[in-house]
Formats: sequence, structure tokens, C-alpha cells
Amino acid sequence: MSEDQRWLTAAASLAARARPLSRPNPGVGAIIVRGAEVVARGWTQAGGRPHAEAVALEAAGEAARRATLYVTLEPCAHLSTRGPACADLVSASGVARVVVGCGDPDPRTAGQGIARIQAAGIACDLVPSPACEESLSGYLTQARHGRPHVTLKLALSLDGCIALASGESQWITGDAARAHTHAVRARADAILVGGETLRRDAPRLDVRLPGLADRSPERWVLTRGAAPAGWCALASPESLGTMEGVQYLFVEGGAGAAAAFLAADAVDRLLIYRAPLVIGGGRPGVGDIGLASLATAHGRWQLTDRRQLGLDTLEVYARQG
Amino acid sequence: MSEDQRWLTAAASLAARARPLSRPNPGVGAIIVRGAEVVARGWTQAGGRPHAEAVALEAAGEAARRATLYVTLEPCAHLSTRGPACADLVSASGVARVVVGCGDPDPRTAGQGIARIQAAGIACDLVPSPACEESLSGYLTQARHGRPHVTLKLALSLDGCIALASGESQWITGDAARAHTHAVRARADAILVGGETLRRDAPRLDVRLPGLADRSPERWVLTRGAAPAGWCALASPESLGTMEGVQYLFVEGGAGAAAAFLAADAVDRLLIYRAPLVIGGGRPGVGDIGLASLATAHGRWQLTDRRQLGLDTLEVYARQG
Repeated sequence: MSEDQRWLTAAASLAARARPLSRPNPGVGAIIVRGAEVVARGWTQAGGRPHAEAVALEAAGEAARRATLYVTLEPCAHLSTRGPACADLVSASGVARVVVGCGDPDPRTAGQGIARIQAAGIACDLVPSPACEESLSGYLTQARHGRPHVTLKLALSLDGCIALASGESQWITGDAARAHTHAVRARADAILVGGETLRRDAPRLDVRLPGLADRSPERWVLTRGAAPAGWCALASPESLGTMEGVQYLFVEGGAGAAAAFLAADAVDRLLIYRAPLVIGGGRPGVGDIGLASLATAHGRWQLTDRRQLGLDTLEVYARQG
Repeated sequence: MSEDQRWLTAAASLAARARPLSRPNPGVGAIIVRGAEVVARGWTQAGGRPHAEAVALEAAGEAARRATLYVTLEPCAHLSTRGPACADLVSASGVARVVVGCGDPDPRTAGQGIARIQAAGIACDLVPSPACEESLSGYLTQARHGRPHVTLKLALSLDGCIALASGESQWITGDAARAHTHAVRARADAILVGGETLRRDAPRLDVRLPGLADRSPERWVLTRGAAPAGWCALASPESLGTMEGVQYLFVEGGAGAAAAFLAADAVDRLLIYRAPLVIGGGRPGVGDIGLASLATAHGRWQLTDRRQLGLDTLEVYARQG
């Protein structure tokens, strides 16, 4: 990995701190470096302002001169009543070079941020970074496809069940896996369950982690009917475009909702929590997805992470292509 | 790990070479060591004779004098028309010390092997070795429970299916996983499938690996009826005691046979080949096992190995307790 890529990866890690509070803005990370020394860091603040570059430049002050600014997303070129354009801030900061991990698809910026910095006589390179792209997946999915980035959770036995035939489902996975799920919730903008799951389990879907209780995201239910109080209704995965401002949607089940999202090819990431037990003849975790043949099932998912959570295993699969 | 344990683990690895050709005898490994030098090695030969100690002592000749013999199983104390008692061979060999990884439950030996060597004035220690125990699991399961050691294979999608609802099942896993299954077959004494699988898939269950085609094990079918030509019939997992001489049984499916063995608590090891694809609403890999509650499902399986086979993952779980 090149030095540029390493610093961009570090900036992408910082960007994670912005999520989800930066909403409706993307969570961006910025690092200002001189030689091997980190001069300042920044990330998008709650509500979306100040932007990451503004935070880092403010922290650096005079130390920004002749330094390199690494930023995960192209600095914005548009003026806003909420703050100055970052491209102008950067141009006036004295930095010698800017490295951008991902171009901004927002038509108000879209290359103009980089162009404006270059026009100010500052070297500015777009160095496409997988880590930056990944850290912006919610923002980019909205920009490119007009819908949120969708993570589907499955908490399964070894044989793929989410409950006994009787419906008993508490608990298949252990404390560590369930705490991990709460942390994933805390980083989502919205959570969704199927109508049957809502009726049967009445899940709270809140974040029960110390210090993060206020992070509980919007609650959505997949239903063609009306949503109960405190919930929003999504008629079908095809209506995901109506979830404006939601960058990250976390679908927590059940089997019907999982199947609907998979059948609509609207799942970007699978989180599979797998407990080391066999249920046998239980309720399957995924309903019919209309798969016509095995050949079409191959090549759609790539394992990107695997970790042990107590006795359970978490596997993360990313959608291919 | 102590030096004794390290040498015993090495002897257990050698014992794997005896499996399954040593049948009906256990596959035993032996290493003769002087200082840090391996003087000779041996493992049980095809048909069960010569024994591992006899092979190693023959190979060592005079070099065995004042050396240490590591052997996975207690040397036999009983005379046989097929060869001398190893305890006598060892006593006459000139070795200074014998280290045994596992006592022999065979009542004709059962401590008498060690006692006879000690009576000859040679130090002989039983150093219980998990690796030796594991390498003798088939022999020990027969000796302790009067049935073969049972490995159940499941080749599953992420959501626990073995086929589409239509029955299409070729292929869920890839070439590497299927070749691995053939290698597991080659080390089994017998393979078993359910009656429905036999009728529907007519599996060959042979070993299709270069140089190992002659290793294809006995073929059994789980049925209360008659077995077709070339097959043996097992009425139920409760009749496993009738499989005399079979140390290692490999149960390859389908869902009914898997459920029958799991419900009878007759599975010692699970091999789960998991392909990175979702089927959704397909045929589950395990039928009803009569599980009364989730609480009773926990704590029964421990992950002992995990490896990548191409795009697929193999997980090995050992029965607890």
C-alpha cells in the first residue's frame, strides 16, 4: 500500500466517528500531515457541519502551511448558508498538497472541488481509495442508486434456523453477538423489520449500550398497511427510494423481510451471526427469494470479514458487482 | 507443550497414515528418538500387522538401544497367531524408555502392556495426549460405546439449505470442497446415506481422487428395508452397534439421515462445508431432531477447525462431553 493509500485509510477510519451523527451529510475524515507527523485530524460534526476539512484546518492553524491534507471525499465547491465551501478554505490554508480518496458525485461539486483547489496553485490528486469508498458507502449508494445502503442481519443456527418450529428464538446467539448488533444499530440511520416480526416479537430495536441509548435510529416496518405509532412504513424494497436522507438502513429480519430484500437485489451487505448449535427442522432464516437455478446464486457474495464473538461467529459478506 | 507431548503429537500424525487400511486394528504411530534425533518411525500396516512398534523397532535395529520409544497406544500384551506381543518386542529391544499416549481399553492389554515393559526394567510412562486420543477416536469409540465414531457432513448454503425447493443441488459447494469430501471418504471405513437420498440421487460415494480409487469404503444406507446390491442396511442409528469392525463412519446426508443421527445423539463430529450463496426457501440440511427448547441446544458443539476451501469454508465441530 502506498503512503497516500495508508493516510487515506487512516482518514477513512476517522470518518467512522462521524457516523451516523453527520446525517444528512456524508461522514468524512481528514488528516493533515507534515513528513511523518500528524498535524491535525477532523471529521464531519453532528448535523453535518463543520465539515471534516474545516475541523482539521482549524485545529492545525499555522501548522497547516506546507503540509499535506488527506481527505476521504472531494472538498465541496458549493457555497452554503451553513458554512464556506471547503475548496476555498483549503485553498486559503497554505497546505502544499491535497489528496482526495473519492470524488464527490454531488453535481454541485463533482470535480469542481478539485479543480478549484488546483486553480489556486495547490497540488490536488484524486487517489481512489477502497477504504474511503467503503466509508462513504451510504452516501455513494444514495447518490448512485437513489436508495440507502442496506445491511441485512441474519442470526442463525449452524443449520440456518432463526427459531424452533414452535417459534422460540431467544436466544440463539450469545451476549457478545447481541451487543455487536446493538453497536451496528447505533451506526445506522434507520432499522427495519418485517410486518410479521413486528406483530409477533414487538422488538424495541433500540440501542441498549452504555452511552449510546440516544443513538437509536428511526424504526421502519415493511408493510403495505399503516405503521404503528413511532414507526414508519415501507411498502416494499422497491420503494427504498422514498427513504430520503437515510444513508444506512439495517434490516434485522425476519425471514420474510430478508427474502423480500434479497429477491429485490437490494442488499449490499450481509451480517451473519452464527451460533454453534443445531436446531433441526426449525424456522429458516430466509424465505423464498425466487431463485431459478443454483448457477445464478453463485458469485454474488464475497466474504470481507470474519470474527469470533464469544462462542458465535460473525461473517460479513459484501455484494459483488 | 512438553517434549513428551510434542513427540506424542508427532506420533499421532504418523498414525494418520495407517487410516483406514489398518482396519480392523487401530491406526497407531510410533517414533524412536535419541536426543533430538529421530531414529525410526512406524505405523500400523494394512490389515493391522505389523504393529507400529514392530515397524519402528525393525527400522531402528541396533539404533534403538538407549533410545526413547513414543507410541500413541499402549503396546499390546497379548500373543497372537499374527505376530508377537509388542510389549515383549519392546522389552527386548534395548530402548531406555517408553512413552505411551493412550492406554489400551482392550481387556487383553488394559495396563498389562505397560506393566510388562516396566517388569522388564524399562521406564514406561503413560502421558495422556489429546492428539493421540483424537487419532484413535474410532477405536476408542468402539471400545467405550460399542459403535463407530460418526462424522456427519453438511454441505450448505449460507442459509442452511442443501438444495433448491425444486431439488436442484448440484453444486452448492465448489471443486475444492468436494475434493476434500473425497479425501474424508478415503479415510472412513464406511459411508452412509439416507434412504431417500439413495433413491433420489443414487450417489456413487466412491473416492474419485488420483491413486485413492481403491480406498472407497463400505456403502451403507439408513433403511428399515432391504439394501440394494453393493450396499449394507442400517435400520436406525440405535443399531450402530451392529457395525462391527467399522471404526469411522461418515454420514453424508440427506436431511433425514442427518436428523436421525443428531436426534439419537450419535454424531461425534460435524463437518460443515459452507458456500457463500443464499438459496432462500430451499430444502433445509437438517430435519426435525426433536429439540424441546433452545436451552438444550447450547453447549453441545465446539469449533475445532476452520479452513477456506476455495470460496467455501469448512468448519469442524466436535461433540462436547
